[in-house]
Amino acid sequence: MNVESFFSKTTKEALKNDPPGEWMPLLPDDCIRLSSGFPDPQLVPVEPIGEAVDRLLKDERDLPLHYLGSPAMEKLKEQIQKRSIERGMRVTEEELLITAGACQAIDLIARILIDEETVVAIESPTYMEALEVFQNYTTHFMSIPIDEGGLQTNLLEEMLAERKKAGLSMPRFLYTIPTFHNPTGTSMKEERRKHVLELAEKYNFLILEDDAYGELHFNKQSTSLKELDTQGRVLHVGSLSKVVAPGMRIGWIAAAPAFITALAWFKKDLDHPFAEATMASYLESINLEKRLETLRATYHAKCSVLLDALKQYLPTKAISWYVPEGGYFVWIKVEGVDTVDLLSDALKEGVSYVPGKFFFLDQQEGKEYLRLSFSYANQEEIVEGVKKLGKVMERILS
Amino acid sequence: MNVESFFSKTTKEALKNDPPGEWMPLLPDDCIRLSSGFPDPQLVPVEPIGEAVDRLLKDERDLPLHYLGSPAMEKLKEQIQKRSIERGMRVTEEELLITAGACQAIDLIARILIDEETVVAIESPTYMEALEVFQNYTTHFMSIPIDEGGLQTNLLEEMLAERKKAGLSMPRFLYTIPTFHNPTGTSMKEERRKHVLELAEKYNFLILEDDAYGELHFNKQSTSLKELDTQGRVLHVGSLSKVVAPGMRIGWIAAAPAFITALAWFKKDLDHPFAEATMASYLESINLEKRLETLRATYHAKCSVLLDALKQYLPTKAISWYVPEGGYFVWIKVEGVDTVDLLSDALKEGVSYVPGKFFFLDQQEGKEYLRLSFSYANQEEIVEGVKKLGKVMERILS
Repeated sequence: MNVESFFSKTTKEALKNDPPGEWMPLLPDDCIRLSSGFPDPQLVPVEPIGEAVDRLLKDERDLPLHYLGSPAMEKLKEQIQKRSIERGMRVTEEELLITAGACQAIDLIARILIDEETVVAIESPTYMEALEVFQNYTTHFMSIPIDEGGLQTNLLEEMLAERKKAGLSMPRFLYTIPTFHNPTGTSMKEERRKHVLELAEKYNFLILEDDAYGELHFNKQSTSLKELDTQGRVLHVGSLSKVVAPGMRIGWIAAAPAFITALAWFKKDLDHPFAEATMASYLESINLEKRLETLRATYHAKCSVLLDALKQYLPTKAISWYVPEGGYFVWIKVEGVDTVDLLSDALKEGVSYVPGKFFFLDQQEGKEYLRLSFSYANQEEIVEGVKKLGKVMERILS
Repeated sequence: MNVESFFSKTTKEALKNDPPGEWMPLLPDDCIRLSSGFPDPQLVPVEPIGEAVDRLLKDERDLPLHYLGSPAMEKLKEQIQKRSIERGMRVTEEELLITAGACQAIDLIARILIDEETVVAIESPTYMEALEVFQNYTTHFMSIPIDEGGLQTNLLEEMLAERKKAGLSMPRFLYTIPTFHNPTGTSMKEERRKHVLELAEKYNFLILEDDAYGELHFNKQSTSLKELDTQGRVLHVGSLSKVVAPGMRIGWIAAAPAFITALAWFKKDLDHPFAEATMASYLESINLEKRLETLRATYHAKCSVLLDALKQYLPTKAISWYVPEGGYFVWIKVEGVDTVDLLSDALKEGVSYVPGKFFFLDQQEGKEYLRLSFSYANQEEIVEGVKKLGKVMERILS
């Protein structure tokens, strides 16, 4: 029996790509993980979540363990709506859908918007998991470079104009992480945010705004594209993974009601009553704004430690980076070095990072880049990790 | 801006159907729920799950709250593999994928197998949620009637032979709930199980075996299709929703490694570390076999109460049902009565059921049927509910 013969066309097509997630070698146990985009373990609210479960099961008994109809679960939506409004977004109940993390959100959006021949505009580089999701639906992409001011909207405009002129298919949506971008740590400048919305109107495309890191600013809050959107073109994806705990898998989509209806259709019964009710019970017990302040201060401090260490321990020639204003990541260019080759040396030395190539549609473009994360390792590990990385780089560059 | 103009073709097509899940009116608060296919609230292990969370967070701290890599989470797979083997299935680690309930499992299978023109064979009636999932991918179905011995495989054989002769597309897979079928409560006879596997080989199709109720037998365990399968044609879907708690959303797929690889591809990061680790911690603390015995005894007793009440309180003419040997449901035929019309009277009287039409591709076929569930209501409520139903039926039949 030939298993492959039963696969759908899109499955056969998707399986031609590299398997998703298989983008890192196994890390040795004692390796300093500057690769992991996980929250700081000290900031994961272990006891409070345990207490939230106890309270929830005491108050609601079996309700959150059934399939539908826990009052706490309903409350989660209100909490997220309230927070969105506090941030300046206009979001009604009909404009909000809770999802199992940002990943399910992105997948659902891909599902309702992408046909086999659909063109998707992406940033270059971009979040690899989102790219892999889109590649499950289409092979047609338009890739727009990023600089320290985020997406280069002037280049986007040129490319759109050229496509239009050449009679090519126009993108159905743009996937962007405008604030504390993964992997580059950059944020889209205010005027570019306005520009990209103008372009969306002029060329009639939608915007999938991935805002997973949006609350984690070091200095000032950015204006989300959703706040600037007057036409309902922005599908805003939020997540509590970076702010509370990724293992809870709580995310959401804020978008015009007609989108939410279609998204809910394909989401169907994929609700997670226990996880959602637990999160609501937890959120009710804390002051979220205060928690966010702690998170921002901690990550800001860790980022500063990383940046200082980079200056102190990396070779001065051939190396450059963007200074992030929030989020989890620093994006580094090592001219003339293949960062995939460098990784095996780094792992031997005891430090990990993510090679840049995994963040590009055309992986060749990412050859000289790497992503460091300051979120997971502690300050001492960060310094130690950068020292190790510096040693490996000295060797390869000399 | 016209939102619909951005939708993919399959989305536009799917939205033409009735919205999923919208198959029941809101139930009055004091209504006796013979409609709900939920576990008995008394059997949902509220305290043990609370304790499982406490233990888990004490042992593993932040690990199950991160994104990957909790030892308990890994253990869940071993526990499910062990149980599958105890039941007589040959399942290796590479043949198992944990999912967010049976619903995600069915959706993932649909995703890797169904093209727009793919024919899917279904039982008639069938589980409406699965049907809705398939309808998100295709409009081509082959519908095979069920009787008290389950799927009528002789009719399936005739239909397959006719299609072949007529040069029509053959089904890529058959979706079946062979054991304690939803909604009919029937089980496929042993010889039909063998027959359907022979047909799968002869006509080269796969079998999606939905085994959500398979452990809940009143007398003897059925042999699953997966156990009988020597060719790797069966994709077996299991779930802990009916056995532990649906709100935890834990299910799985057991299938040949090449299927699992493709399914894992599309599942991507949609793991639920906290829920999975909690379930593993819970399962480790209990004797599952003993728990199953309690469940079987309880549901058996409740089913007997329901069947006795049916005999006692329903009108004797025009009404018939199958006697289930396990599961959650009794399927009732009321000749000459439209069960959708009857429902509004029943709700006024204070009892609910699910009208048969929702379980059919051609809803007209289900007009005279209704599904009663003995899982959720307690014994007194069951008797009371059937009395009410009898009253309403007397009125409409007289």
